[in-house]
Amino acid sequence: MKFNNYNLYNKFNSNELQKLNTKAKQIKSDLYAKNGKGSEYTGWVNLPSTINSNLITDINKTAQSFSNVKFVVVIGIGGSYLGAKAVIEGLKNNFSNFIDNKTPHILYAGFNISEDYVYELKQLLTGKDFGIIVISKSGTTLEPALAFRVLKDLLEKNVGTEKSKNRIVAITDKSKGALKKLATQNGYKTFIIPDDVGGRYSVLTPVGLLPIAIAGFSIQKIINGAVIAENDAKNSDINSDLAMQYAITRNLLYASGKKVEMLVNYNPKLHFFGEWWKQLFGESEGKDGKGIFPTIGNFTTDLHSMGQYIQEGERHLFETVLSIEKPNNEIVIPLSEANLDSLNYLAGKNVEFANKQAQEGTRIAHENGNIPNLTIEIPVLDEFNIGKLIYFFEIACAYSAYFIDVNPFNQPGVEAYKLKMFELLKNNL
Amino acid sequence: MKFNNYNLYNKFNSNELQKLNTKAKQIKSDLYAKNGKGSEYTGWVNLPSTINSNLITDINKTAQSFSNVKFVVVIGIGGSYLGAKAVIEGLKNNFSNFIDNKTPHILYAGFNISEDYVYELKQLLTGKDFGIIVISKSGTTLEPALAFRVLKDLLEKNVGTEKSKNRIVAITDKSKGALKKLATQNGYKTFIIPDDVGGRYSVLTPVGLLPIAIAGFSIQKIINGAVIAENDAKNSDINSDLAMQYAITRNLLYASGKKVEMLVNYNPKLHFFGEWWKQLFGESEGKDGKGIFPTIGNFTTDLHSMGQYIQEGERHLFETVLSIEKPNNEIVIPLSEANLDSLNYLAGKNVEFANKQAQEGTRIAHENGNIPNLTIEIPVLDEFNIGKLIYFFEIACAYSAYFIDVNPFNQPGVEAYKLKMFELLKNNL
Repeated sequence: MKFNNYNLYNKFNSNELQKLNTKAKQIKSDLYAKNGKGSEYTGWVNLPSTINSNLITDINKTAQSFSNVKFVVVIGIGGSYLGAKAVIEGLKNNFSNFIDNKTPHILYAGFNISEDYVYELKQLLTGKDFGIIVISKSGTTLEPALAFRVLKDLLEKNVGTEKSKNRIVAITDKSKGALKKLATQNGYKTFIIPDDVGGRYSVLTPVGLLPIAIAGFSIQKIINGAVIAENDAKNSDINSDLAMQYAITRNLLYASGKKVEMLVNYNPKLHFFGEWWKQLFGESEGKDGKGIFPTIGNFTTDLHSMGQYIQEGERHLFETVLSIEKPNNEIVIPLSEANLDSLNYLAGKNVEFANKQAQEGTRIAHENGNIPNLTIEIPVLDEFNIGKLIYFFEIACAYSAYFIDVNPFNQPGVEAYKLKMFELLKNNL
Repeated sequence: MKFNNYNLYNKFNSNELQKLNTKAKQIKSDLYAKNGKGSEYTGWVNLPSTINSNLITDINKTAQSFSNVKFVVVIGIGGSYLGAKAVIEGLKNNFSNFIDNKTPHILYAGFNISEDYVYELKQLLTGKDFGIIVISKSGTTLEPALAFRVLKDLLEKNVGTEKSKNRIVAITDKSKGALKKLATQNGYKTFIIPDDVGGRYSVLTPVGLLPIAIAGFSIQKIINGAVIAENDAKNSDINSDLAMQYAITRNLLYASGKKVEMLVNYNPKLHFFGEWWKQLFGESEGKDGKGIFPTIGNFTTDLHSMGQYIQEGERHLFETVLSIEKPNNEIVIPLSEANLDSLNYLAGKNVEFANKQAQEGTRIAHENGNIPNLTIEIPVLDEFNIGKLIYFFEIACAYSAYFIDVNPFNQPGVEAYKLKMFELLKNNL
């Protein structure tokens, strides 16, 4: 893995950098010593290296039990589905919906309250045997609870109440809450959400790992990658800790007025990795009137929509490019006899050659337009490297939030809409 | 259609409002008199009411010719596909990929340079009869040109060169350019991109209408909606012109330091409408160091990722909620005997009842957090109302850009990355 900020430090004065480096050392030491804000939720820090191999076996065995259904619905919102979706979308075929796979299609529910969405999902699954993975710490969050009511009823109708119990897995608190109670009553297979790992840091727990395994990907390889990243962070000083360098860089940029960070990809499979990253950083940093606004750029796609703004609009942006060195497949640009598009000079070259020139050309053009660019590069998009990226961003996010002195692990503001909503639900009945 | 800014004008002083109203009158008069910046590209202003019925017939007949293929690939980037995709995703079933439809599945290509994307698309279509709609004014834009090379070759291999000519439709310039020339040479069915309509304003030309018709939706109803919106804008003074009220409101907010606008939906089908809107506003306003940064919120989904930031992060945001009064289908919340989630008080209510309380609760919570909220509401998500929305946002965008004195119809900054990219493509061969 590589991180490049293109000598950005040279643009800042050395006193400021020195102060940040001093703070960085303190932050790193606080995080590992559990002395920082919210340290009761830092169970994710040592998670990759301490995962029990029995848990991996159990998850894989459970995943296997769904191998003969066409659809498995993951019910969850926020951190309860974004990690799994990020990894699955990152690894699966762009057109897998149209292909008869050996593994189930993963569908998602309980992450919105759209009546048409629930109706159409029910319509699709009517009469079918399907699986449900319901993920909720409490079991009372409105969105997943409503979806679970509808889909549980449907599954019981489709396959009978008894058989439905083998088609439902609950991922929830170890002892408390509505979902735990229901799972115990009905004898659902259950996995535990650890107490010391918050939703947005939970992808390497069963919350993320079970859906990923059901989709047919190697969770062991993901863990292997994350272990490497965990050790890289743990065993490095702040100068060789790439996650810390990323955190320092974005903090410098934020302090200089860059209040929007665009996580850019050049591969559409990374779009939902961006959505996961948005929650991770937005929810960790966005408090006390502070925080960088995280947003996604799917390039070159969005160069033809947001490209104009990035190049010449308000100068409050910087870009972090999530780069993949090599594609997984090869396709060469064909020769055209007529050559009316004048692109024959590219014939015989791989498509990715053009993609990489677009990436480098864009970086130069945007930097010329005073949009700072950072690059994080992995060699190839696979389980191992996604595992590394996950841990890299988790620890970089914790560092970053500590730079602006906020608690990276709480989300007090999420309650505000819920309180108003529940008040209205009761008053407007 | 309704627009509500919740008495936001009361928070601003009347001198400022008076100045904006005076400017609004001038802007409206300039736009219709073609006196504003970039007026040579205002062909879209009268487009809905002047569409030739023969063109509609021709588009529908052409669409019909694809009724027996399973896949039609739309090749285009930016304005060449975003309008069609916005409408199609807005109208189709959330799970249509898994359903055998009577109409072809629309796939998209030429909007990225991902080698894996092209490889997997080619893999999916190998051996199949499929359609290609290639959309490019020039025919030399890198992304669509490369995709067209690959897919044209594949189609010719699959069905033979002669038959492939009936499976390819070109939407391009009336007389100039590589694609026009190729289409003429090969006898492809061709539709024209009007000279006075830029890419991001082109959804109501064949660029958007043909793919929408192929997907099985009524383009006549879309036009009907747009005609109403065109007349509403044309025949109203600035106080009753909702698009102008939206433009004035967002300009007031921008001037007060709100530099990020989030277009919020409570229905996942509107996500790509948001992507279309992002291009429309971002590319129209983002120049000369100015412009509101447009971004999307899919709620309640993103309340569990960006909700924390919106509620308590930097105060540089406002939200525009794109609201749909009624869903297209009905599903009631089931009773649960155990009632462990304590939601039985909602049993028998429609799912949308909860969605609407979430929407109203969020508006109140975010306003309490000093995030101004605007609402644009349509009665139902269908062709007619999408047609209205399209025109509403097009004209609101032109008004808005004129408020900050930029040309809403050019995109000089998009060339910057292309120039660097083509330089690198040639130098690094």
